[in-house]
Formats: sequence, structure tokens, C-alpha cells
Amino acid sequence: MRIAVDAMGGDHAPGTVIAGTQLALDDPEFDGVDIVLVGQEESINSELDGTSFSSPHISIQPASQIVSMKESPTKAMRNKPDSSIAVGVNLLKTNDADAFVSAGNTGAVLASSLLSLGRIEGVNRPTIGSFMPSLTGGCVVFDVGANPDAKSVNLLQFAIMGSIYAKHIFEIDSPKVGLLNIGEERTKGTEVVIDAYGMIEQEVPNFIGNIEGRDILTGKVDVVVCDGFIGNVLLKFGESIFTALDKKLRKMIGNKPFAYLGAFLLKPVLKAIAREFDYQEYGGVPLLGINGVSIISHGRSSPKAIKNAIGVAKMMVDRQINEIIKYELKVHRVESPRMPQVDDPVIPQG
Amino acid sequence: MRIAVDAMGGDHAPGTVIAGTQLALDDPEFDGVDIVLVGQEESINSELDGTSFSSPHISIQPASQIVSMKESPTKAMRNKPDSSIAVGVNLLKTNDADAFVSAGNTGAVLASSLLSLGRIEGVNRPTIGSFMPSLTGGCVVFDVGANPDAKSVNLLQFAIMGSIYAKHIFEIDSPKVGLLNIGEERTKGTEVVIDAYGMIEQEVPNFIGNIEGRDILTGKVDVVVCDGFIGNVLLKFGESIFTALDKKLRKMIGNKPFAYLGAFLLKPVLKAIAREFDYQEYGGVPLLGINGVSIISHGRSSPKAIKNAIGVAKMMVDRQINEIIKYELKVHRVESPRMPQVDDPVIPQG
Repeated sequence: MRIAVDAMGGDHAPGTVIAGTQLALDDPEFDGVDIVLVGQEESINSELDGTSFSSPHISIQPASQIVSMKESPTKAMRNKPDSSIAVGVNLLKTNDADAFVSAGNTGAVLASSLLSLGRIEGVNRPTIGSFMPSLTGGCVVFDVGANPDAKSVNLLQFAIMGSIYAKHIFEIDSPKVGLLNIGEERTKGTEVVIDAYGMIEQEVPNFIGNIEGRDILTGKVDVVVCDGFIGNVLLKFGESIFTALDKKLRKMIGNKPFAYLGAFLLKPVLKAIAREFDYQEYGGVPLLGINGVSIISHGRSSPKAIKNAIGVAKMMVDRQINEIIKYELKVHRVESPRMPQVDDPVIPQG
Repeated sequence: MRIAVDAMGGDHAPGTVIAGTQLALDDPEFDGVDIVLVGQEESINSELDGTSFSSPHISIQPASQIVSMKESPTKAMRNKPDSSIAVGVNLLKTNDADAFVSAGNTGAVLASSLLSLGRIEGVNRPTIGSFMPSLTGGCVVFDVGANPDAKSVNLLQFAIMGSIYAKHIFEIDSPKVGLLNIGEERTKGTEVVIDAYGMIEQEVPNFIGNIEGRDILTGKVDVVVCDGFIGNVLLKFGESIFTALDKKLRKMIGNKPFAYLGAFLLKPVLKAIAREFDYQEYGGVPLLGINGVSIISHGRSSPKAIKNAIGVAKMMVDRQINEIIKYELKVHRVESPRMPQVDDPVIPQG
């Protein structure tokens, strides 16, 4: 298996990306995986030279341009045909790689993957999901930004794809799926979610109905379905909690000696909790519905997160997730006259 | 000034409501305020008899029916004309009270207020806001549930009303207003928010543009503008954080003796932070755009929260917030051809 990795993507590229790649190749679980680092050869080589690491399973695919984190995806695609993202995605298209992993500009990876590889048959709109930690482990949220104005059929497809993802990647037998809403009753919310409720209920076996904001941290479901606007706001709010609490705690402790000692003694526990709730630790945001395995990692990814993202890419290939999505959507389309044909062009934002 | 208080509203009514009323009347800041407890006379009297409290400023307005927290607002209005909510709101209509405070069924208070009192001239849709704590104190979020599918003109009006509220109730000279979105750029998000950006920019002086989920806890703005779907999900998610962390902390400490001692020493600080971030402590969720002062308090309100809600009601009357909203909306309507006439009937959900 060949996995292409965007060496230039992320806030601390290429350093962290290469460190993460090395972590993966050091792990016997990744036996049989070859990594293709995509990016500026000189920069990658000087980074590799700085380490004692060497492996026959690592190679370089040159790409001269870099898409920055804030760049407009459409502009980047037009003006930077030799970016590490464009070149990496193209390796999938030409079958020179089985998966692509990037911690770079999410919109650009989505746009590039979508236009080069297209959608899986039956998918109206691809979705970007994210892991959100909870008391009982965590859940995946679909969508977190690719579809700010999702329609009910999109929400249905997020539910189907998210459920497949949770089942085969997290190995949950029958993942519980919840529709994020403002009340438990099926009549609550906007027309879009009320309509989606009826559709998901028919198509997704372990749909437990509407969930509310308070149900996410308690771990009520494994898959949260919502539009990309709310998913994105929620994710960024969630990511900000620990930094805010840390600042608050330091300020309140000030120079109170007992509190200071208390914090010192409690530190290992507080750190363990913070780590468990640290979103970037998980790595590997799935981009589902694309005709190819494209994995997005957080811009602030640590080497461990990069390694995890490569792990997700490996599982996506090994377990043939895209084939399953294609098959399941076909089944649902046959069984449900409600599921429309692919007709809904997606124009990435920016 | 006469403030009607729903004695039957909230999870622990009438006990906590009456305790909160007493806290208020004990405070010299509430001199000149008479409280009318609305509800089942016998139940209120037996609760009052259980305390040593007596005041010439307290009276009872009988109402035989109770709207439960989960009841459908429209059904409640139809079937319970003598509920404490209906009777309390009617006191406003007949000018027998200057304000009404309820910790009961939010939808029923909204529906009843809207239909009995109507909207302030110029308001298309009334909005329910909520306080959200942050590192620098907190902000108010409009809307948190009255308008799950707000249009851009509604968002504009939430911005104007929310700004007036923050200025006159929180005494912030020029409150910073932010539009909740999935990116900072003005081209981000759905058509509704992109359109709202342009309108708010023209009409609200201290509009700082789009904010993201991560900006709420850092206290970047005083007023957060969003539709009621996202506001509601976010609020309930926020409310759930401390319970989740508390559970996690207890579990992780387990029987580790150093961590246990640490938690003991740090307890006063942790408690102070939890209190600061405890949404229900604040009480008095504003219902703006209604032609009368109707204040909603959290169902789980403590006596202190009830007292605070009565305090908000008093300020709303003293500072003539509704008159200011009416005036400001008139000014904006004259100045901006974009601001439509009132034409948009509001049908409360349920």
C-alpha cells in the first residue's frame, strides 16, 4: 500500500509531518505501507537529513508550490497546479497512491479531491467529519464545514456515511446515530431537520432520533448528524474550552498557596483529561463521499496526530470503506424512492 | 412598580420561586417594587406559611392551572386559559403589572406574551437571548431558540435589540457585536449570514464582523448574533461542560491519594470557576421585541437566579428598554430602505 503524505501541509510543516511519518513507519502495525512525501524536495531532504531516521519505505514526490492555510481554495487550484495538495491528489487519480493525507488547507484538499477524483456514485455532497471527545470516548460529527447549508437528503447521506465510518473505523457494531436538533420531539427544528428525521428513520437502523447540544459530551450517540454550519461552530467552540479553562484556572489560583499546591498535586489528572479532550490528538478527519481516500488532519496536528491520520488512511483502504458506501447508497437508493440521483453540483467555497 | 412572578414555573416551584422573591424583597435595591405571585393560592400560601417571611409588598393573584415544562405551548394556550403563565401575562395586558417573570415553559411564555401583548412596532420576530459566561465576563447570545430558521433581516434586528440590551442592562458603553459564522471572511457561510453581514455592518455601529465558535469563550464580543437553532445547540452544549468535567474529574481521581488531596486543596478555586460558568446563576433570559416586559428564567433557576430575573425585569422597566427598541428600529427603518415593514407573522412552535 502506498500512502501519499502532504509534507508541506499544517502549521509546522514539514517538520511535524515528517516526524509523524517516521512514527508510523516505526510501528509494526504499518508494515507493508510505503510513504510518499509530497512537496519541496530540498526542504524535505534537509528535514530528513536532520534526523537519524532512514527507511526504504519512504520516497519523495516533488511539488514546487505550497497552498497556505488561509488561501482561497478555488484560487489555489487555479494558480498552483504544482502544489503539494494538487500533486498528492493527482497520485490518487493516476493510481500511484492508494490514499492521500494532508494537514494543510482543508478547503483546498476538499476542492482538489472533489474535482480530480469526483464523488462516489450516489453521493450528492461529500462531507468532512470530525471526532469530538466525550465522557464515554467520543463521537464523530458529520458535517463540520463542507456543507453549511445542507438539505435533508444531504443529512440523510451524512447519517449513512457516518454510520459506515463509525462501524468500520471505530469498530462499533451498530453505531448509534443522532440528529442534532433543538428538542427531542420529531416536530422540533427547521423544515430541513424535520424532513431529515423522517428520511433517516427509514434508512438508518440504529437512529435514536433527535439529540440536543447537551447530549454530545455525555456520549449519547456515536454519530452526530448536522449541517456544516452548526458542526463547525460547535467544533471550534469545543476546541476552545480547555485553553479557556486553563487560563481561568491559572488566573484564579494566582498566588494562593494551598490552591497552588492543589493544582500541583492534581496536575497529572488534569493533564490526562486535557489530553483526552484534545481534539488534535486524534488526527485524521474523514472526508467521505469522494471517489478516493483523502484524509484531512488538523492544521495544528502533532506528530502523533499525523501518524493517526496515516492510520485512518490505511484503514479506509484496508477495509474498503468507499466500496461499502457505494454499495450501501445503491441499496438505499433502490429501496427508497426518496433518495435522488446525483444531480447536485458542489462548488467549494472561497 | 408591580412585578408579576409565575409562582408555578420552574423545576422546583413554588419553593424556589418564593425563596427568590423573598431574596429580592429583602434587598434595598428592590425598594418600591411590589411582587404579585401568580398561581395556585393554597400552594403559595402553604409555602409562605413555612417561612418566617412576611412583607406588605407581596400579594397573590390566583391562577388554577399549571403549564408543565414539556407541554406544547400552543396546546397549553388553548387548553389552559387560567394557567399561571396566561394569568401573569394578562396582568401586563390590563396594566395591572409592569413586568412578568417566569421560570416555566419558555415556549408557552413566548407564545402567550406574543399573542396577548403583540410585537414592538418594527420588530418582525421577537427573540429570546441568553447570557453565556466567558473569560472576560460573558456575552449575550441572540437568538437561542425562538427562531430556528431566522432570515437575514431577523439577524439584523437581533443585533440591534441585543446591542440595546447589552448597553442598557449590562451598562456597556458601545457593546461589541459579532455575527456567528464558520470563518472570519465576509464571504463565508450561508446566504442568510452573508446577507446579514452587509445589513448589520450598515446599521450597528460597533459591529466587529464575523466571529467563530472559538471566539465565544475568549470574550471577543458582548453580543453574539445567530439563528435560534445554532444558539440553542451551543447554549445547551455550553451548559453541559461543567457537569461532564466534574464527572470525568471524579472518575480520573478515583483513589489516587495525591490527586485526591490536590482536588481538596483546589476545591474552592474549582467551585468559584464552576459558579462563574454556571449559566443558571444569571437568571433572566431576555425576551425582546414583545410589547411588554416578559422575562424568562431557566427551569433549574436557584432562588438567586429568580432574584436576578426580577432584577432584570425591574431594569427593563426602569430603563425603558422597549421604548428604546421602538425608537431605534424606527430610526433604522427610516435610514435604511432594506429594513422591511412588519409583515412576518410569528407562529410559535409546538
